[in-house]
Amino acid sequence: MSTLARIKQAAAVLNGVARRTPLLNSPFLDEIAGRRVFVKAECLQHTGSFKLRGAWFAISQLSDEDRARGVIAFSSGNHAQGVAYAAKAAGIPSVIIMPQDAPALKIANTRALGAEVVLYDRATEDRDAIGEKLSSARGLTLIKPFDNTDVIAGQGTVGLEIAQDAAALGITHADVLVCCGGGGLTGGVALGLSETDLRARPVEPVGFDDVARSLRAGTIEGNAALTGSICDAIITPAPGNLTFPIMAQRCGPGMTVTDDEALRAVALAFQRLKIVVEPGGAVSLAAALFHADQIEGDAVICVATGGNVDAEMFTRALGTL
Amino acid sequence: MSTLARIKQAAAVLNGVARRTPLLNSPFLDEIAGRRVFVKAECLQHTGSFKLRGAWFAISQLSDEDRARGVIAFSSGNHAQGVAYAAKAAGIPSVIIMPQDAPALKIANTRALGAEVVLYDRATEDRDAIGEKLSSARGLTLIKPFDNTDVIAGQGTVGLEIAQDAAALGITHADVLVCCGGGGLTGGVALGLSETDLRARPVEPVGFDDVARSLRAGTIEGNAALTGSICDAIITPAPGNLTFPIMAQRCGPGMTVTDDEALRAVALAFQRLKIVVEPGGAVSLAAALFHADQIEGDAVICVATGGNVDAEMFTRALGTL
Repeated sequence: MSTLARIKQAAAVLNGVARRTPLLNSPFLDEIAGRRVFVKAECLQHTGSFKLRGAWFAISQLSDEDRARGVIAFSSGNHAQGVAYAAKAAGIPSVIIMPQDAPALKIANTRALGAEVVLYDRATEDRDAIGEKLSSARGLTLIKPFDNTDVIAGQGTVGLEIAQDAAALGITHADVLVCCGGGGLTGGVALGLSETDLRARPVEPVGFDDVARSLRAGTIEGNAALTGSICDAIITPAPGNLTFPIMAQRCGPGMTVTDDEALRAVALAFQRLKIVVEPGGAVSLAAALFHADQIEGDAVICVATGGNVDAEMFTRALGTL
Repeated sequence: MSTLARIKQAAAVLNGVARRTPLLNSPFLDEIAGRRVFVKAECLQHTGSFKLRGAWFAISQLSDEDRARGVIAFSSGNHAQGVAYAAKAAGIPSVIIMPQDAPALKIANTRALGAEVVLYDRATEDRDAIGEKLSSARGLTLIKPFDNTDVIAGQGTVGLEIAQDAAALGITHADVLVCCGGGGLTGGVALGLSETDLRARPVEPVGFDDVARSLRAGTIEGNAALTGSICDAIITPAPGNLTFPIMAQRCGPGMTVTDDEALRAVALAFQRLKIVVEPGGAVSLAAALFHADQIEGDAVICVATGGNVDAEMFTRALGTL
């Protein structure tokens, strides 16, 4: 089970490995939101997203024998890069299974970080079967993107850092808005905040609000579709079996934002904070800026979860300024 | 005189005020440069540039009477925003004199930060006369952008932080490349590094290399033109009477980069570091990436001095990817 003690252990393992990302702010954003807005810039993390934290801690917790054989992950995105980077640093093999129509740059980046990339055809091949075959042949350990207690604990170090920085700023009661896919980060942050009066809340794209609906229903609900939003980094089928109970126990109500609001948040983060955030990493800031009526208190903290956005999408975002 | 002791005093004053900006890196940039590259992300500083440091410290050193009367600065750029922000925080008036053809957004931003903006016509009015009249009428203290010992000491805190972070990384000998206008930051950083074997080196745009030429000549030389580069933030007539002797004593040879190289560095900082850097703030990274043959050692540190770039210029930079 993930607990605060486990997150503190993860923080010790990640010390000097993960960047201590800054909490940024701007009076211009405060004015839009009608309260003080702080942004935890995880886009500045190694590999451009928080995913490194969970991947690194999960790999660190393997037995020596398992670790030596290597790890495997299914991902075409931020989790792939986090696992590849952590595995390379640990000096172990990593295999990343990606659809062959994944962006060439993401494939190249993951290879450049030291991973063996195995491509499959989404139409004709079974991803899980390929992974199963590789894992059993080589003894690779699967690192799931969110439904893994060590991954949740690693992501939870974001919450610990927010708790410390908020205390230094004198912020004792506030919502902490988290861009939410499967809930590994949101659940981890909620646990990381459990000794404070800060409250984690998931933020999702409109139409892909499986976590918000699941929290309202008190049981896991899925998304009707898995494509159709530019916030691809946080589109997942449903909250996890491990992450959902944590979120149900600890999180405040979910929020949703439109793609257009996410793009405007990307542009404002460029203009006012000088950081590069991907649309799926900006939904938290979008919620703070454009749905202020759903938030209480004189301060809000947003996790900007990732910055892996291509030039074309970023240019589109800048067009909203 | 600016000294290391004075910079340490400035660091104490700026503690909790200026952001401790991170030193970022990426294996992809290391590969281009052929050595480890670290980027001090001063674009993440409040107001989007290092200028806040010098402005804040200079204001803090005024007598209570002078401070209460307020400050004045000539600037349409980063110095203006630094002075306005620091003055507002100190609760004192600030007057910023800008040409009336300055970008509307910069004027609006400076006003929003609390400054009184006085516009003048470059063709028909004398900037200095306007400033002189306002200063004497109201008893305002002029905060020069670089040729002021307290401003130099404030900027020098960037050097202190680099010295500490480099030591933590085990980097003992390396060039520290600094985007250089009048030399306030470059001189300050050189002083801040004076207890280390790190060496500050100014980087300028081709054709506006007054500091590099002055260092070679051993005497102050000016630029033939003051317009014609996209790196406008670091185009100044000549090194200062206070900054030049510091740089002559302490800095390594200057380097120059083209506008196109600066734009490519902006794009690579977007893609690999997830930060927004203006062209004039990226010449240091451009020198590290594209003029590696002029640098010695297995590591180099670049100061990314500012991120105040508009969407149009940034989009142009992204087009180089």
